[in-house]
Amino acid sequence: MTGLYTDLYELRMAESYLKRGMTADATFSLYIRPTDDRPWWLALGVERVLEFIERFGFDQGELDYLSTVGFSDAALDAFAGLKCCGEVAAVADGTVVIADEPIVEITAPLPLAQIWETAVINLVQYPTLVATKAARVAFAAAGRPVVDFGFRRAHGLETGIEAAYAAYVGGGMQTSNVEAGRRYGIGLVGTMAHAFVQSEPSQADAFRAWATDHPDNVTLLVDTYDTRGGVRDAIAVAKEGLPLQAVRLDSGDLVALSRAAREMLDDAGLSTVLIFGSGGLDEHSIADLVAGGAAIDAFGVGTDLVVSADRPAAEIAYKLVTYDGRDVIKASEGKESLPGAKQIFRTGEVRNDVLALRHETFGGRPLLEPVWRDGERLATFDIEDARARAVTELAAIPEELRPPDYPGPAPRPRRSDELRARYERLRQRG
Amino acid sequence: MTGLYTDLYELRMAESYLKRGMTADATFSLYIRPTDDRPWWLALGVERVLEFIERFGFDQGELDYLSTVGFSDAALDAFAGLKCCGEVAAVADGTVVIADEPIVEITAPLPLAQIWETAVINLVQYPTLVATKAARVAFAAAGRPVVDFGFRRAHGLETGIEAAYAAYVGGGMQTSNVEAGRRYGIGLVGTMAHAFVQSEPSQADAFRAWATDHPDNVTLLVDTYDTRGGVRDAIAVAKEGLPLQAVRLDSGDLVALSRAAREMLDDAGLSTVLIFGSGGLDEHSIADLVAGGAAIDAFGVGTDLVVSADRPAAEIAYKLVTYDGRDVIKASEGKESLPGAKQIFRTGEVRNDVLALRHETFGGRPLLEPVWRDGERLATFDIEDARARAVTELAAIPEELRPPDYPGPAPRPRRSDELRARYERLRQRG
Repeated sequence: MTGLYTDLYELRMAESYLKRGMTADATFSLYIRPTDDRPWWLALGVERVLEFIERFGFDQGELDYLSTVGFSDAALDAFAGLKCCGEVAAVADGTVVIADEPIVEITAPLPLAQIWETAVINLVQYPTLVATKAARVAFAAAGRPVVDFGFRRAHGLETGIEAAYAAYVGGGMQTSNVEAGRRYGIGLVGTMAHAFVQSEPSQADAFRAWATDHPDNVTLLVDTYDTRGGVRDAIAVAKEGLPLQAVRLDSGDLVALSRAAREMLDDAGLSTVLIFGSGGLDEHSIADLVAGGAAIDAFGVGTDLVVSADRPAAEIAYKLVTYDGRDVIKASEGKESLPGAKQIFRTGEVRNDVLALRHETFGGRPLLEPVWRDGERLATFDIEDARARAVTELAAIPEELRPPDYPGPAPRPRRSDELRARYERLRQRG
Repeated sequence: MTGLYTDLYELRMAESYLKRGMTADATFSLYIRPTDDRPWWLALGVERVLEFIERFGFDQGELDYLSTVGFSDAALDAFAGLKCCGEVAAVADGTVVIADEPIVEITAPLPLAQIWETAVINLVQYPTLVATKAARVAFAAAGRPVVDFGFRRAHGLETGIEAAYAAYVGGGMQTSNVEAGRRYGIGLVGTMAHAFVQSEPSQADAFRAWATDHPDNVTLLVDTYDTRGGVRDAIAVAKEGLPLQAVRLDSGDLVALSRAAREMLDDAGLSTVLIFGSGGLDEHSIADLVAGGAAIDAFGVGTDLVVSADRPAAEIAYKLVTYDGRDVIKASEGKESLPGAKQIFRTGEVRNDVLALRHETFGGRPLLEPVWRDGERLATFDIEDARARAVTELAAIPEELRPPDYPGPAPRPRRSDELRARYERLRQRG
């Protein structure tokens, strides 16, 4: 089971709570703190949280291990009885949120909600990072298809598969990742590597072999030796009557080289042959290529996407906001946490969201919905569902919030009068 | 099985190789390209590569999937027969290497060695990134213990466990990650979170509860409200006769606050109480804290460690260097690959390494050893073995290469005369 997928202090705190009878319901709120470089996030990972909670528990082996690191028999007995109860409210996978807006709120007996902290943060963070990065890349590509090539550089094999999933949800990306294709039904893309070109006596031989062996899928990698020569060899092979769908440029000045390749292909009567660009790309370089007039029809992104290179971690908080019906706040400067279970109301543009208490009613669409109650799932978010929602949500993001170099500050939701009043009352009480 | 843990193009290339009878042995060399900010790497992941190769293969479900994405029956039959043969040479897990030095060299039938590319890069990259980061952090901490707190921010749950493993190998770090403690026998560390302090009527109540419930493990988190007040409450609780081993500072100016805390503790006769510092730390900030005279006895690092924040991916190459006994090179400017299976000879300092051909003999210690041959493992690197090696290897790194802000350029090995001559001959032949 998964009882040990947590930090030691969570279990030690839970031990104290259990010993002291502090097992009333607590609400923890998970949200992302503002950072200038991400004016919005595409939330993803709620399905993962539900999967985790569903199989959460301590098996005997886990309890035996805990007994060797100092947990009392009483604690172990109590852990063994921890059930997947409680209530989870969350935004649907594929929803756009801004800073401070809860993605998940967990209400459960304090020990359980505390133990879940580590995994819940972990399971929301990575999909959200990559889905957001993918959406940013897709905006930069301005309608050109983008493909995920990042499997090899992800932080772990399973993580590479999760990256492909998030890249599909956030950017509609096909992938090179075969296992992700099988697991999620994502469309696969594959070209060739430099090794293939090198394995044949000449580049033209390699191109010929490829076009013969994979006639439906002929994207020739043209930069192994020198890009213009590669394009010439590709054209020569096409002139022999072999199929050619695209050439791939993977290095060098992609604006100049793609325009040269386009001209060479057009001059050879191959104006339907596409040009594919890759090689260390991210949303910034893709935006520059598009603005610079690169003749690139589709992009491949890898490392920068799957490690979210410019922001490899999100400032995710998981804060106690109520315990046993009592509001809890943290009043530290710039890192305050607001009391009570929340609701987000979307009245129009994401910048105009209202952050309110759960029981309030406002105009607009409430984003948090119950997804788990008393041991039962109330919602399932599969990949196509999340992707469909993301398409609609991303289309509603205002133009000013789309450029990759958005200067900040990140928008934050307006707080409802009641939320502000409740926070102020608690803060003054100290 | 794991046949689909690869990129589509690897399988398409393999299909061509098989169809064309190109199944002679190829050697691929995996090494890291130079980057100024990492003058050395602590190599880790060879054990993972061996585990992958051991269980590599295609099961029927995988083959069925491939038939739906256009692979021919002949290709599927051939894939089904791909065996884990070949020879793998590698440095031992926990070895220090520099840029250009092979960590793994795989010699196997070309289709197999090609299909393995994606997974082999993935499996070496992440442990090496984190073990290296951990070693850098440990150097910066100058003998003070450092603990891994990163589970929640790793890119996936399993990745968080892998991070703890790599942090132990590279930095001797204990961890907060309970599952990593169980799986690898790494020592666990746990303090308390702000939520625990907030869950009690007062901070002093929370401290009292903790010291009562966990008398062997009393590290009190003192910054929930204001750090000096937190230290005062911790002292008050200790004066009541309750145990106190350490206080933890998690925010603010850690130099000033730690010195103030030290003075307060000393004045209260609590000079054996330790001070633990955490909160967004990495090797740079830890070096600054040590240089600035912070009174911190141990550090916790989290996010920056487990995502290797300043360098979340390594420039790993996996290059074809021989096929069927014939040398292969890639002569692109700055990204050239050198022909032939290699050996690294360490004659003293890592900066003086010689990169040679496998059959050459030199003075010094050869670093690559056979770890797999014809379907059999020749070596196993468990965590304690890797850690023990890392301790020795890291101790031999010269002082000039240790500072976190090493300005570059990254050292590279000297090439043997024969390697240079062979490369030049091939390059001139074109």
